[in-house]
Order: sequence, then structure tokens, then C-alpha cells
Amino acid sequence: MTMKALGIHLLIELWSCNRQKIDEMNYLERIMTEAAEAAGATVLKTAFQDFNPQGVSGVVVIAESHLTIHTWPEYGYAAIDIFTCGTKVSPWKAAAYLQKELEAGDIHVREFQRGFPLTVEVNRPHPEFVTHDACSTAHSQ
Amino acid sequence: MTMKALGIHLLIELWSCNRQKIDEMNYLERIMTEAAEAAGATVLKTAFQDFNPQGVSGVVVIAESHLTIHTWPEYGYAAIDIFTCGTKVSPWKAAAYLQKELEAGDIHVREFQRGFPLTVEVNRPHPEFVTHDACSTAHSQ
Repeated sequence: MTMKALGIHLLIELWSCNRQKIDEMNYLERIMTEAAEAAGATVLKTAFQDFNPQGVSGVVVIAESHLTIHTWPEYGYAAIDIFTCGTKVSPWKAAAYLQKELEAGDIHVREFQRGFPLTVEVNRPHPEFVTHDACSTAHSQ
Repeated sequence: MTMKALGIHLLIELWSCNRQKIDEMNYLERIMTEAAEAAGATVLKTAFQDFNPQGVSGVVVIAESHLTIHTWPEYGYAAIDIFTCGTKVSPWKAAAYLQKELEAGDIHVREFQRGFPLTVEVNRPHPEFVTHDACSTAHSQ
């Protein structure tokens, strides 16, 4: 399907991570925030939760969409996704930062475009809107 | 790549939504929470943000991973993703609930497995671990 891309969404599998690091909620909250900043994003909110006996889930809401992480320390595995809209932010920079920080031995990334079909008629706020960064109009403060 | 699936991740495009509804943060926070419950998930935390002049971003952290939404009211478009681990939760039920609530005229869903390669050696906490629901062990309280 041909879509007008409003953003890029990465599904990232990190394997053979440092098992101690991916079980530390405060550390993960810090590096997820730093990853967002490495991507050039503006951090708005975070929500993290650790689990018993192990594992952490966390999300970072950014002006350009989000980053999430879910970890399985018992497997050395972290599932991450990074969704960024606009052209000024690079989700790949965030992915590289996290791979390095978590000492992941292996990484697999799937990249997808998010948006709407080109056949959808766009209700433009003003005539020159198509030349603007859609994200910066809708999703930045 | 053959992976041991720990969860299902849906990337959902909702088009021709009710433009007023997808610009109301409190409403979206409520129905995203309800969607999680419709899926059979346990809601842990939420983080929502609205934008000027329009648009909302929000995440719901669940014991089984997360739901997120980002809306572009000017396009009638909502980008949603739902990641659930374990076999007791159905992300498709959440998707159907949101499609109905947001009065989406069209929906497109991509489904992916999340996990690790079967070649990775698993450090099992106890011998019978493979017969358990990995998610319920790691990510439920």
C-alpha cells in the first residue's frame, strides 16, 4: 500500500544484552531518555514499571511520538520500538545508542512507514501545508 | 528468521476517524485504557499529552507490554500500536474496540512476532520453564 509517511517506526530486538543492566528500571529510564535526546527528539513524559521477579517495561513520550522498551533479563533480551515523525529526528541514532548502552551482542531492526494512503484527501490547514513538516505542525509544542 | 515469540505486536493505521474524538486527550486516555481491558490486559500506568494546535500522543503500560496512540486530527488519522506478550491477552480485541470507538472508516493492521532467535540459548530459571507462559513469569506481578 502506498502511504504518505508521517513517520518511521522501528521494531528492534536486542539479544545477548547485559542481563543486570536490563533489569534496572532507573538505569533504563535514564538511557531511554538519553536515546531520545540522541535522536534529536524532545522528551515530554516517561512511565516505567519493574516486575517481580524480573523485567522492566517503560515508555518515553516525545514530541515526535515515542520510544518503548520491555526486557526479559532471564533471556538477555530487550524488545524496543521507536516511532518518530517528521524529518528532524533519527530513530536509528536512538537504536544505536541503546544497542551500545545495553551491550547487546546482536540486534535486529525492522523499519516501517506510518501514515495514510495517498488516496485519502487531506484537509490542509493552509495552502502551503504540504511543504511543511506534518509532524512539527501537529505534534510539537 | 525463526524466533521464539514472546509476544505479538500490531501496527495499526486508523483512517477517516471522528476528527473531534481523536483530538480529545481525556477521552483517548479513557478508551485506550478500556481497549487494554477489552484485550484482557492489566493496566499499570498511562502517560498522555495533547499538542497545540491539535493532536494527542498517549501510552498505556500494561503488565503484558503496552498500547500507544498518536493522532493527526487534521487528517482524521490515528497511528496505534499494541504489543502484548503471553497467550492470555488478545491485541486484536483492543484494535477492534478502538476502531469502533474512533469511528474509523478504514483500518490497516500489520502483525509481527517479537522475541529471540531459537538459536539463542535460554537460561531457564527452572527445568519446566519452557512449558510456562514466559510473559506471565517475567512481566506480570
